[in-house]
Amino acid sequence: MDLADIGVTGLAVMGRNLARNLARHGYTVALHNRSEGRTQELVREFGGEGTFVPARELADFVASLKRPRRAIIMVKAGAGTDAVIDQLAALMEPGDMIVDGGNAHFADTRRREAALREQGIHFVGSGISGGEEGALLGPSIMPGGSKESWEALGPILQDISAKVDGVPCAVHVGPDGAGHFVKMVHNGIEYSDMQLIAESYDLLRQALGVTPAELAEVFRQWNEGELGSYLIEITAEVLEQVDAETGKPFVDVVVDQAEQKGTGRWTVQSALELGVPVTGIAEAVFARALSGHPEQRRAARSLEGPEVSGDGAKELVEDVRQALYASKIVAYAQGFDQMAAASKEYGWDVDLGAMATIWRGGCIIRAKFLDRIRAAYDADPNLPTLLADPTFAAAVNLAQESWRRVVTTAVRIGVPTPGFSSALAYYDGLRRDRLPASLVQGLRDYFGAHTYHRVDKEGSFHTDWSGDRAEHPA
Amino acid sequence: MDLADIGVTGLAVMGRNLARNLARHGYTVALHNRSEGRTQELVREFGGEGTFVPARELADFVASLKRPRRAIIMVKAGAGTDAVIDQLAALMEPGDMIVDGGNAHFADTRRREAALREQGIHFVGSGISGGEEGALLGPSIMPGGSKESWEALGPILQDISAKVDGVPCAVHVGPDGAGHFVKMVHNGIEYSDMQLIAESYDLLRQALGVTPAELAEVFRQWNEGELGSYLIEITAEVLEQVDAETGKPFVDVVVDQAEQKGTGRWTVQSALELGVPVTGIAEAVFARALSGHPEQRRAARSLEGPEVSGDGAKELVEDVRQALYASKIVAYAQGFDQMAAASKEYGWDVDLGAMATIWRGGCIIRAKFLDRIRAAYDADPNLPTLLADPTFAAAVNLAQESWRRVVTTAVRIGVPTPGFSSALAYYDGLRRDRLPASLVQGLRDYFGAHTYHRVDKEGSFHTDWSGDRAEHPA
Repeated sequence: MDLADIGVTGLAVMGRNLARNLARHGYTVALHNRSEGRTQELVREFGGEGTFVPARELADFVASLKRPRRAIIMVKAGAGTDAVIDQLAALMEPGDMIVDGGNAHFADTRRREAALREQGIHFVGSGISGGEEGALLGPSIMPGGSKESWEALGPILQDISAKVDGVPCAVHVGPDGAGHFVKMVHNGIEYSDMQLIAESYDLLRQALGVTPAELAEVFRQWNEGELGSYLIEITAEVLEQVDAETGKPFVDVVVDQAEQKGTGRWTVQSALELGVPVTGIAEAVFARALSGHPEQRRAARSLEGPEVSGDGAKELVEDVRQALYASKIVAYAQGFDQMAAASKEYGWDVDLGAMATIWRGGCIIRAKFLDRIRAAYDADPNLPTLLADPTFAAAVNLAQESWRRVVTTAVRIGVPTPGFSSALAYYDGLRRDRLPASLVQGLRDYFGAHTYHRVDKEGSFHTDWSGDRAEHPA
Repeated sequence: MDLADIGVTGLAVMGRNLARNLARHGYTVALHNRSEGRTQELVREFGGEGTFVPARELADFVASLKRPRRAIIMVKAGAGTDAVIDQLAALMEPGDMIVDGGNAHFADTRRREAALREQGIHFVGSGISGGEEGALLGPSIMPGGSKESWEALGPILQDISAKVDGVPCAVHVGPDGAGHFVKMVHNGIEYSDMQLIAESYDLLRQALGVTPAELAEVFRQWNEGELGSYLIEITAEVLEQVDAETGKPFVDVVVDQAEQKGTGRWTVQSALELGVPVTGIAEAVFARALSGHPEQRRAARSLEGPEVSGDGAKELVEDVRQALYASKIVAYAQGFDQMAAASKEYGWDVDLGAMATIWRGGCIIRAKFLDRIRAAYDADPNLPTLLADPTFAAAVNLAQESWRRVVTTAVRIGVPTPGFSSALAYYDGLRRDRLPASLVQGLRDYFGAHTYHRVDKEGSFHTDWSGDRAEHPA
């Protein structure tokens, strides 16, 4: 029997589809699963798609791999991952490679990479986006880890990844936790995209009194333009869906509590650590949290709203499209800032333009828009913010009056648009010559002697607020 | 020589003032500092205020304490705290008490408390708010830890705390990390208060073209009403301040970059973990972060704003006052939610009304307003949200039209008010009958088979989006 080019352990739906994808691309794929049933099932159902080498025991799985060995772990992120890594590592040799394709926290990946490096084993924390379908037909792949591991794994990962204009959606992100970090931010941005879409739908429905089906048509049109993206496309599908049982719009029979699995939360927690304002992602995570507190929502239902309602004109549709686009630019600017800050903090040297490139296909946030981001970083790899790119600056300038009308309309009729309004506040804050942060610093100096800087000379200063109010160098 | 009632180690300004406060209240206070100079200086300058027992070595410091020993650590939070705790604990006996009066992270406090409990030593993580002045004249004190430690420490802490209407601003918060948790949320709320004040100042100045000195008068008037609070009071002082060197308003010579020491960030990170939306605190933390990125702000300065500007009428002053009050209610509602969630998660049984009570004096966020919060929890200890309290509901209902005018004015003239607008979005979200979270859940089911619940029956469901679009139980 031939040795396998690569192996997959953990054959739930993501692992199974990734193994099939590898086999379909001509690789001999070793298979292992804790309970053997899934392994047998895969071979039985899809054995004809390529060459599989099933193993019952992990030792046999490792023994069936060519050297240096390449093993992908596709198990649920958490403590279980450590156990599988330990078992695998004990069976491997220096130079072998372990890929974690789950949604691990990047700090765990850094810890695991450092530990395995001691044993000479390459640990590759890799983001894999695209869900079940992406895993099978071509995901976006974001591997971290050593350069050597990329040399051995890169060609395979690029082979099985999505392609856009012939370019593979897989690139070496950077050392240790870089791949999982970038995947985490991808997911955070996904939260923000979905929140902005939800606000667009909600505001248009309330203001114009139109049906979900009519709004499906609006999203379908938007999908033809600069907003063209997977999420806009499937929004039209979901809005169009009619519940077979009741005949009502699908979105009206679904409980309005959005769940979350944690990567959005991680993104915001990390951004707080790095000092990067990611208001778009934070508001999206918090909007889901708010929706999930039915007891509070019941208790607050008697709170009053404005007298006016549903006063929107048809022009609001185009205004909301512009607001969605501008808010999206802000959310991506913030997410890319976070990747830049992490890259600096952890010494990863992440190529931001390359991240935009590999997100163009395979993943949930795939969009035409990402070509523009790539172009912005091609033009200036050290862009301080996406909003400073001439193309995006022009887009936001063009959109801003619409954006303002959308937020004021929402506020007037009482529809919550935290995503739109926080993005606009960020925009107005960033472009501002002087911010009232000087007052905040003054207050901090008053009650805590935290000192302040002056605009006209170097140094730190403190005012003797409880005494003669004279200023002293601090 | 008499044994001391209590000791303080770490005699920087906070520790020194706390020791003096204890001595002034008749307690014999043992003193220790790593470098002896500060100990000597305290005795030399303030020895007449009471009875001090200075010690050069930590062993002498511990030996000078009555049993059970009570030692307060006042050192900078971080790794140094662990070292001092270890040294102290090695010199102590079961039943003794170590109080950490610094701003430790509550998770560290939980870890330390558990470790010392093994040795039979009571570890009390205690929030102490009020800055230097509070430490000397009466702070707000938030101790966690065992009931036994509270029995031995409570009377002393209540003695030296601030009093409001004769009620001490010190109460046993709950076990292990509860005290430091509550202090952390206090600080997070402080961030939010300051951000809302800064937005009020900024918007009024831009919209009305008035001077900081004129606005000082506005804040002074506000301080007489329901907004009456320490922070509003000192805002008037800071706005009134004129720079001696340039003759310009003080706030115009201070660099507009607000700094932070970390408790605001911790608050938001914890809230994300607990699933509690604290948008007011998050926007405040992020507004500071934004202000602190001068390179991005420079790059974004050419971005365009609206054509209109400064069109506010005098009525805007009262509108802003209402918006500030309503947004403040939202921020406190969120912070109290977070304490309730943590209390449940960690088994602390925190009395929320008591927290409002001890914040009425001594601390930075002290305000008349807190009496109303106390009353709300007195009336219903299980209030699902402060916004459901009839008094606060009435206040917000009264304020909401003003609040909406303020946000629309800010958006129209391009002044960033992330605090006001996120608070309003939260309010409109919370009171909403149906949220567009149902669309978010629909999208999640589409791309990730994450399933959804229905409004009309129990169970989880999945729609076969890529097939015949029929619904199946999941």
